[in-house]
Amino acid sequence: MRVVIDAMGGDNAPVATVKGAVEAVKSYNIDVILAGNEPMIEEQLAKYDHTREKIEIVHCNEIITNEDKPVSAIREKRDSSMVAALKLVKEKRADAIVSAGNTGALLAGGLLILGRIKGIDRPALAPPYPTVNGMSVLIDGGANSDCKPRNLLEFGIMGSVYAEKVLEIKKPSVCIVNIGIEEEKGSEIVKEAHKLCKIGPFNFKGNIEARDIPAGYADVIVCDGFTGNVILKLTEGLADSIFRLLKEEFVKNPLRKIGASLLKSGLKDFKGRFDYTEYGGAPFLGVKGVLIKAHGSSDAKAVKNAIKQGIKFIENDVIDDIAEKITGLGEDIIE
Amino acid sequence: MRVVIDAMGGDNAPVATVKGAVEAVKSYNIDVILAGNEPMIEEQLAKYDHTREKIEIVHCNEIITNEDKPVSAIREKRDSSMVAALKLVKEKRADAIVSAGNTGALLAGGLLILGRIKGIDRPALAPPYPTVNGMSVLIDGGANSDCKPRNLLEFGIMGSVYAEKVLEIKKPSVCIVNIGIEEEKGSEIVKEAHKLCKIGPFNFKGNIEARDIPAGYADVIVCDGFTGNVILKLTEGLADSIFRLLKEEFVKNPLRKIGASLLKSGLKDFKGRFDYTEYGGAPFLGVKGVLIKAHGSSDAKAVKNAIKQGIKFIENDVIDDIAEKITGLGEDIIE
Repeated sequence: MRVVIDAMGGDNAPVATVKGAVEAVKSYNIDVILAGNEPMIEEQLAKYDHTREKIEIVHCNEIITNEDKPVSAIREKRDSSMVAALKLVKEKRADAIVSAGNTGALLAGGLLILGRIKGIDRPALAPPYPTVNGMSVLIDGGANSDCKPRNLLEFGIMGSVYAEKVLEIKKPSVCIVNIGIEEEKGSEIVKEAHKLCKIGPFNFKGNIEARDIPAGYADVIVCDGFTGNVILKLTEGLADSIFRLLKEEFVKNPLRKIGASLLKSGLKDFKGRFDYTEYGGAPFLGVKGVLIKAHGSSDAKAVKNAIKQGIKFIENDVIDDIAEKITGLGEDIIE
Repeated sequence: MRVVIDAMGGDNAPVATVKGAVEAVKSYNIDVILAGNEPMIEEQLAKYDHTREKIEIVHCNEIITNEDKPVSAIREKRDSSMVAALKLVKEKRADAIVSAGNTGALLAGGLLILGRIKGIDRPALAPPYPTVNGMSVLIDGGANSDCKPRNLLEFGIMGSVYAEKVLEIKKPSVCIVNIGIEEEKGSEIVKEAHKLCKIGPFNFKGNIEARDIPAGYADVIVCDGFTGNVILKLTEGLADSIFRLLKEEFVKNPLRKIGASLLKSGLKDFKGRFDYTEYGGAPFLGVKGVLIKAHGSSDAKAVKNAIKQGIKFIENDVIDDIAEKITGLGEDIIE
């Protein structure tokens, strides 16, 4: 098995990407390709003990940055590490790609270079969502702002296969985000999607109100990419704000400061529950290839875990399973 | 000035509604009408010192419960406290209505009985949203799942007038919730709405990502009712989950328990920052009448503050101001 890493993608590239790749080679006995600037990659590689024959470098002169516009970056920066990595998957020289680079460009590249699985109208991003019970999968995390009912059905199928095969959740429950649990409530698109999902090939549990998402009520949380983006970013912003305000209160007098110091380990354990580096990244489901988007601020551990995620993805034939379930729907639903 | 209270609406009715009304009469020297079951209201009134000539009771035999379907409840329960209260505003026997009852029914009743301000296509709910800097206004909080671009413009106008005149925010900033701050990002509807808002009669600050909402980046947060509902409910659910998990961590060993006990007042002060009872309720903006939806679990203090909010609403001619600004848009935009 061979995984290609966009060695220049992410805030900590190429330090974290090379280190993560070296560790993954050691831990999982796989081959990796590092796409990126060769001298810079060699400089990083020199720091670690590594089996050189299991690591290939594909040199590229360009880097897609977070400031680049997605589609034009993919079209114009043909000698970038991201484009090179995607092409290696397309040409079957690699089985999976991991990138912590520009999300929009990676999604555009996935669509343009890898293409879609037959029958899938809209591939979607499926990031992990931390809940009281562990991790759920949110799909779509932001790839498609405007969705048709049929797209939400596809998200349910893809999210369910992924949750079962990669996250090892048995019979994952699938819910559609809505403003009420009643079938007749919500936007026109969600109401139509509900009807389709009721006969979808997964464990459909109905609607979920946003209130119940953090409680872990659904394993797979289905919504359009606009709503998904709002859910992910609001969660991030709200957690930040709550901790900022708590901190303000906790240092207001000496007694509180003592209390806070006694709780330091508790706060750390709390934060550990949401450590994204443990969970790898977000797969872009529905494209013809295994594509894992690692967090932009990924460290070596996060890169290594994203690679591990890619391996499980390949080993469990997630793409074939999605393709089969989509075909099984019959033309009347998918077209 | 005379405010009618749906005395039977809410989890704590009629205890909280009657007490809140009595206190409002004392504090603000207004007249109130209590719509509801007369013997039950009299029983509550007997508990308090009150100026009887400032309190009128309009007896009704029915109650709209949270289980009732909104539109049919309004149409069929004609002798309910909610319908009676709305009719009193319609007939100008009261200047404002406060209800803590069934939200859907109240919105349906507002539309059916009070009607819309000329030029307003979709009235919207505008609840307060707690941020690091105080309170913002979220509009639409859930009245309209499907919106047109023009509706978001209306929400901006109504939210801005309300924030300025009732919440006393000078030149309130207005933002549209979107998946990026760039004008060209987002759903088709939001992109169109952005263009309209740029020439809207308010302090338009552009798009806001959900991440920046809790930080108080915008005074008026504009979105469709689906997104608004997701924002409000996710905020509620996430805050609950965070505190549940923190609590779990804080009692894990004796040292942490001591720490937590020292921080008890800090946690209380933290929660006090988000005390909705201080802020009254959510106005239903765009209908021809002052309609304040108080929280379902309102206590007497929350009811009293919702009444105060209604008073400020009337005193500052919010409805006339909205009507004027809508008319000023010109036919090409509003039709």
